[in-house]
Amino acid sequence: MPAKKIDLNSDVGESFGNYKLGLDEEVIPLISSANIACGFHAGDPAVMKHTISLARKSGIAVGAHPGFPDLIGFGRRSMDASLEEIKDYVTYQIGALQAFAIAGGIHLQHVKPHGALYNMAVRNTAIWDAVAEAVAAVDKRLILFVLAGPGREELESIGARHGIRLAFEFFGDRAYNPDGSLVSRHEPGAVIHDNEIVAEKVLKLVEKGRVVCKDGSEIEMAADTICVHGDNPAALALVKKIRETLLASDVEIAAPETFL
Amino acid sequence: MPAKKIDLNSDVGESFGNYKLGLDEEVIPLISSANIACGFHAGDPAVMKHTISLARKSGIAVGAHPGFPDLIGFGRRSMDASLEEIKDYVTYQIGALQAFAIAGGIHLQHVKPHGALYNMAVRNTAIWDAVAEAVAAVDKRLILFVLAGPGREELESIGARHGIRLAFEFFGDRAYNPDGSLVSRHEPGAVIHDNEIVAEKVLKLVEKGRVVCKDGSEIEMAADTICVHGDNPAALALVKKIRETLLASDVEIAAPETFL
Amino acid sequence: MPAKKIDLNSDVGESFGNYKLGLDEEVIPLISSANIACGFHAGDPAVMKHTISLARKSGIAVGAHPGFPDLIGFGRRSMDASLEEIKDYVTYQIGALQAFAIAGGIHLQHVKPHGALYNMAVRNTAIWDAVAEAVAAVDKRLILFVLAGPGREELESIGARHGIRLAFEFFGDRAYNPDGSLVSRHEPGAVIHDNEIVAEKVLKLVEKGRVVCKDGSEIEMAADTICVHGDNPAALALVKKIRETLLASDVEIAAPETFL
Amino acid sequence: MPAKKIDLNSDVGESFGNYKLGLDEEVIPLISSANIACGFHAGDPAVMKHTISLARKSGIAVGAHPGFPDLIGFGRRSMDASLEEIKDYVTYQIGALQAFAIAGGIHLQHVKPHGALYNMAVRNTAIWDAVAEAVAAVDKRLILFVLAGPGREELESIGARHGIRLAFEFFGDRAYNPDGSLVSRHEPGAVIHDNEIVAEKVLKLVEKGRVVCKDGSEIEMAADTICVHGDNPAALALVKKIRETLLASDVEIAAPETFL
Repeated sequence: MPAKKIDLNSDVGESFGNYKLGLDEEVIPLISSANIACGFHAGDPAVMKHTISLARKSGIAVGAHPGFPDLIGFGRRSMDASLEEIKDYVTYQIGALQAFAIAGGIHLQHVKPHGALYNMAVRNTAIWDAVAEAVAAVDKRLILFVLAGPGREELESIGARHGIRLAFEFFGDRAYNPDGSLVSRHEPGAVIHDNEIVAEKVLKLVEKGRVVCKDGSEIEMAADTICVHGDNPAALALVKKIRETLLASDVEIAAPETFL
Repeated sequence: MPAKKIDLNSDVGESFGNYKLGLDEEVIPLISSANIACGFHAGDPAVMKHTISLARKSGIAVGAHPGFPDLIGFGRRSMDASLEEIKDYVTYQIGALQAFAIAGGIHLQHVKPHGALYNMAVRNTAIWDAVAEAVAAVDKRLILFVLAGPGREELESIGARHGIRLAFEFFGDRAYNPDGSLVSRHEPGAVIHDNEIVAEKVLKLVEKGRVVCKDGSEIEMAADTICVHGDNPAALALVKKIRETLLASDVEIAAPETFL
Repeated sequence: MPAKKIDLNSDVGESFGNYKLGLDEEVIPLISSANIACGFHAGDPAVMKHTISLARKSGIAVGAHPGFPDLIGFGRRSMDASLEEIKDYVTYQIGALQAFAIAGGIHLQHVKPHGALYNMAVRNTAIWDAVAEAVAAVDKRLILFVLAGPGREELESIGARHGIRLAFEFFGDRAYNPDGSLVSRHEPGAVIHDNEIVAEKVLKLVEKGRVVCKDGSEIEMAADTICVHGDNPAALALVKKIRETLLASDVEIAAPETFL
Repeated sequence: MPAKKIDLNSDVGESFGNYKLGLDEEVIPLISSANIACGFHAGDPAVMKHTISLARKSGIAVGAHPGFPDLIGFGRRSMDASLEEIKDYVTYQIGALQAFAIAGGIHLQHVKPHGALYNMAVRNTAIWDAVAEAVAAVDKRLILFVLAGPGREELESIGARHGIRLAFEFFGDRAYNPDGSLVSRHEPGAVIHDNEIVAEKVLKLVEKGRVVCKDGSEIEMAADTICVHGDNPAALALVKKIRETLLASDVEIAAPETFL
């Protein structure tokens, strides 16, 4: 029987000019897909080139991590941008990163919207549709990362309409509501701080396709990729714990282009 | 006998956000190659998409017009950027425009550095080399626009080393020194304001491969593309005059990818 | 009996770098208060200095027109900035303009938030409070421009709490609802395009303190300043019509610092 | 006999948005003058407010640290900006910081140009003149920090012409040429890495007004302020060493406004 496969993705390439952010050198060897900032909310041309080079050395897949043009707010603030503006921002940022990927001898695997853009899309499917349209117009081989949970069918129809694959993303360190949505960060208990619990949640998701929700109920959930972080040593320790737990259960950590 | 061919190129797509600049709708149908700003010194994602669309409608070739990250100075101020930084800026901007070209159903033909970056390259061949390296690393089919005149052999060896084609550019409205270099804008008479004279200069260049210099001497000059402007009605009138003069002499106005 | 007084204010100084916007030279002599962009949504240091100089020549009052850091969106897009961020943006922009005013030999009279920041404040009084706090902390002599209409008492208590004066602003070319609020721009008839009607509306407001609403009902409205535009020749014609109508009725056009 | 006085200044407030830089909390209590970035090459409104607050708590003087509009290059790249543009950039940035100082209950003491702007001024006195003119036009009480060494008389005449005080700055960790200029960073030995030697150099400068140059010769040098750094723990250790050495010799560490 073939091993179960799951992707580990992390936001990297978030340094800018003289400013260093994140432990990219350390997290990249631990993951299978790198979401690289493209210069709007973080990242700059030199950082993009360097991050592509790091990913290539580790042999992992790379994707564009487009955000709002809000460096001062790190792309975390909702902006009342039109769908047309969002499409243009996504197109621009995919292209910019694609040039570095090509120059670096690799290809882009995926696109994952960053911060407020991702969160706005989760609340408003028209934004997923706009992003998918932009992705497909640049390269239909690109995989769009979207949130696993409720609304999966609508997302699948968006992906099908634009002819692109979707990778559904699961957050191991976040509590889930019984409807499959994420517990808001404004609520207590939204983020899980116990590495053992997070690793077990991830393993259960991968092996059983199930999640224990905040209220103790258990629901079905299918996901292709797990979001992890490399901001600090504690985050890295969690990534290592998740890796070990998965590998110990014969789960293969692999980029989604290898199994989608 | 086949007609002589020459390209007319112009900087377009220089609007930004709420700010409109240039008469793109009017100049694009008159030229064969559009140099499109890529968001660093001018242009933004929406403008880039729109300009690609205008070029497509007119069936002309498009190229990236990368500049320094200096919107407030319109990319016209020399910056002490390293060769590595310059390469990264060029890579980024080519990629960003390429995505809009692909999404718009066309391809990029060329790259022409903008403003201070172009002028710094003219004074320092190492910058042409860096730009050529960046261009080649993204796509060896891209043609690099460089200044015709002295140093042609060195430029040709740069192009050959990186495996890309060069289009040598002539400025019809600029006076030339006897060594084939442009008369500095700081000197009187650097810019020629008589449309008849400009059109005759362009025709002589195309038909005879010769230029009458500022001191009255005549030199040889080979060029593939003529730089024209679309900033204002007077500039448009000059483009029309040049077109008429060339067409009346059976010169074909064509993008360099058709004859290089 | 002393003449009625009213202020005419207009957004100016919205050019940026190589980009020109608005007919500042023409509108400034027609108004009494200039709202000068401060470099976040529009304007740059050179434009700010020049606009201060134009205002000084015409002897009119000047104020800061702070906006969101969104040059590409011209400050017209709502951003989910915190109250603390908004205060800091307002402080920064007031200070930057104040330096040019002092260097130019004049003083700042007022602060009027721009675009999305103004509109967000109209919908959320906590933003007016944050702006007022920032204004007062820099200089209690500064007058804050706020929207006339419903909620006046709350605004007055905000002004009183922070120890600053308010100038209530009326939009002559906008239709009003019976509750004194502006008819949304998304509704038909929101903007009045007949110069005669606009001028009559302004005169009635100044002389009678009354507005005829969109539904024909008439309500009371007190205002200190009228917003006018200088974007194009048609806008200028309207400003001239309003001026003539007011002056013909012995209304004095004066900056609010002279009568508040 | 009154104690000798000297200022210790350091660049602070260089964080931006989500990016942290420097150990401001630790270095500010050790210095007497803080050079605060103003949002062009580093710093943002929130950081400026916070840094003013830190300086106020430590009771030290603050100044504006204006730089080129080059966040990606941290203001370290020469830009071919005109004198007029430089004046406008300086005016803008002084004003922006001044508003935070006033709102924070303190005043600006000084202005020290940052990075490439400082270095360009050292090479071209016309830039010192432009900066001095901008400083004086905003507030003649502001002290301009300039480089001690050759050209002092010309700098003094610039200060006198514009009616502002100058504070001459010494770099304790930099080697000096026999003419009093700094040894270029491109030369070996330009930076001194031994804390003992640096502290002794500073003490000799303060007590004797003399510097031992790179070639072993000794020259006269008068300075009012010593540049120190707070980028990392090693830099902090050097600041502490300099403080101890000065205090042990009864030198008073004091902001220049207290003795100029």
